[in-house]
Amino acid sequence: MMRPADYEVISGGVTAVPGTLASGVSCGLKEKGKDLALVCMDKIAAAAAVFTTNRVKAAPVMVSQEHLKGGVAQAIVVNSGNANACTGVEGLQDARRMAEITAQKLNILPRHVVVASTGVIGVPLPMDKIETGIERAVAELSPQGGRAAAEAIMTTDTCVKEYALRTEIGGREVTVGGMAKGAGMIHPNMATMLAFITTDLNISSKSLRKALSTTVDRSFNMITVDGDTSTNDMVVLLANGLAGNPVLQEFGNGWQEFLDALEHVCVELAKMIARDGEGATKLVEVRVLNAQSAEEARKAARAIAASNLVKTALFGNDANWGRIMAALGYSGAQFNPDLVEVSFASNAGREVVAMNGRGINFSEERVENILRNDTVQLIVDLKEGEAEATAWTCDLSYDYVRINADYRT
Amino acid sequence: MMRPADYEVISGGVTAVPGTLASGVSCGLKEKGKDLALVCMDKIAAAAAVFTTNRVKAAPVMVSQEHLKGGVAQAIVVNSGNANACTGVEGLQDARRMAEITAQKLNILPRHVVVASTGVIGVPLPMDKIETGIERAVAELSPQGGRAAAEAIMTTDTCVKEYALRTEIGGREVTVGGMAKGAGMIHPNMATMLAFITTDLNISSKSLRKALSTTVDRSFNMITVDGDTSTNDMVVLLANGLAGNPVLQEFGNGWQEFLDALEHVCVELAKMIARDGEGATKLVEVRVLNAQSAEEARKAARAIAASNLVKTALFGNDANWGRIMAALGYSGAQFNPDLVEVSFASNAGREVVAMNGRGINFSEERVENILRNDTVQLIVDLKEGEAEATAWTCDLSYDYVRINADYRT
Repeated sequence: MMRPADYEVISGGVTAVPGTLASGVSCGLKEKGKDLALVCMDKIAAAAAVFTTNRVKAAPVMVSQEHLKGGVAQAIVVNSGNANACTGVEGLQDARRMAEITAQKLNILPRHVVVASTGVIGVPLPMDKIETGIERAVAELSPQGGRAAAEAIMTTDTCVKEYALRTEIGGREVTVGGMAKGAGMIHPNMATMLAFITTDLNISSKSLRKALSTTVDRSFNMITVDGDTSTNDMVVLLANGLAGNPVLQEFGNGWQEFLDALEHVCVELAKMIARDGEGATKLVEVRVLNAQSAEEARKAARAIAASNLVKTALFGNDANWGRIMAALGYSGAQFNPDLVEVSFASNAGREVVAMNGRGINFSEERVENILRNDTVQLIVDLKEGEAEATAWTCDLSYDYVRINADYRT
Repeated sequence: MMRPADYEVISGGVTAVPGTLASGVSCGLKEKGKDLALVCMDKIAAAAAVFTTNRVKAAPVMVSQEHLKGGVAQAIVVNSGNANACTGVEGLQDARRMAEITAQKLNILPRHVVVASTGVIGVPLPMDKIETGIERAVAELSPQGGRAAAEAIMTTDTCVKEYALRTEIGGREVTVGGMAKGAGMIHPNMATMLAFITTDLNISSKSLRKALSTTVDRSFNMITVDGDTSTNDMVVLLANGLAGNPVLQEFGNGWQEFLDALEHVCVELAKMIARDGEGATKLVEVRVLNAQSAEEARKAARAIAASNLVKTALFGNDANWGRIMAALGYSGAQFNPDLVEVSFASNAGREVVAMNGRGINFSEERVENILRNDTVQLIVDLKEGEAEATAWTCDLSYDYVRINADYRT
């Protein structure tokens, strides 16, 4: 379904898309580095978003949900260093004020501003710093600002996460760009994960919403770092229509092309998040093949990807397929344990380690060699049906513990 | 409901119970130490058990489920060092053979033997060693053998887990004893956890089953070490009737006393398992108070106890109540985030850190002092209703990663 050959990967992240400006500045929310990002469209755009399923929702999540009810937006303001979560009525007022200040400086409506925050929970937002930051960010908006914005949304991330591609949709050249932050508290159903995606496609708000939710289920909802779902997650998608195609509707001409392009961008960003999981030494791709249904495949892949025992074994380059079988067993997926085949793969080759639900003779040395790689695959063939799914995670290392045991990081 | 004052804690573990013999021997399944345990009653006993919910069930689980259908048993044979899981038809034959050999040497029926295994997944049981072990274990059966048996079921456990008490039930003196093994792969709904409990109470099989399932939900199903549910878990309870009380039925005279005594033994063993979680430096008790229902309280307590982020923070003695709020939020429990109060407690005192869902001014030094303790409590008051629940876990340390990243341990 994914046809990367049709895409031209380009630089620029969210600002690769025509009509999009961005900036990233420092306003003192974090000890060092940029901590306030702004993305702004030339015109009002169709907008869709997916939010955390956590019952404890940060103030910016509530405000953005409210603002996006109309299905349109023009700007996104994001701060790192402070989550504005568990901050009560004042937190809600602060999040609203962030939108108002941004709207005022950009001369747009407050309800056309999406607000996001990430960082420490339970500390009031220092609004004076935020205000200074927004002012500075508006002044620095630029068509080359994508990278600075991507830097400003980072917390414990060790690298900038952005991606953009150009492709043809319904006969028109269309660009899709995005940026994300991840690191800890990452788990299916939106984790401490922020992703902002832009496109110049001309599409209805309703169709955009459909496209995003479909795509998120196959990308961001298939990554897990530590099984913790955060209070602040959101994925926001803005489409400004500058590509000039006839308004795209669900199942219309170019619909599948758009889904594919969007999925490609989301999967690339999701993989960057998984690879950069706190303390990670490798990206782990869990592929479940030949399941009875896509839902069964997803359940199985996610449970294996979320297992602490599987993840620590991978840190040790240990071919512990028994832990994979155990995770599969409690995943809730339907399968016959006596049919399962498990193999490990990477650039160094592929080795089957279990067939018909039982261990077979395999070279531990060869598997260790396969696993000693920065991208590895666990392939679980259920031999039940024809559906498949992929989940992404990272290994669980000493550094995960170090990073999370020390509240000063 | 628990009235520990009514109990006399005694030594002897499973063999504290009259009419019970046990032994633990070494037969070469593990590199060193005892690895085969036997528990045997003087007469056929009422029997009940709870098994892993994992779809991938080890052979001994399947055989014991079969054998316990009749509600009676007389002996339990357990090996450590090899899980006999993912071992196919031969594994099933081996588990049956373990029961047969034991039955033959004890001159009882094979279906009166419960079989359990724990250890590496996917490796065939070396039946010659097992046979030698059973022979030796039968020869060494003794009324003082409880501790040796408890030693023989250990894997990565760092200490022996046994407990016994004497109490009065329905006017008769009754003893309840137990042993358990835990360490890794521990999570609600039966994890790599084995527990064997004996009593001389006279009780019907049906009532015994009811008592065990009620009790397990409040004890073993409320502990989590790493969220992984294993292929081999079981809790088995044998009651030989030697106390001579009139057969106890559900809700009969002494029913509540028995539930309380059984719960006390199960909770003590469950806490030993949580405290000895792989790499643990402390026992963490998560108490959720004033929930709408017991089920909501349990959900909330379990989610907090299972959070990697909460557990790493506790390893670092960090008062990170935000992570507790986040885990509460994704637990699925019903609550109003704006009412929640969070506090930390231990022998060093108690400190409230959040009220009405928001952080309050508290002394980080005082909390750090509270958390720098080998038993700590997280208390979450939902202020919604009157139900409560407690879950037990341990912190997540560097050593958890070390133990599980190295397949040679």
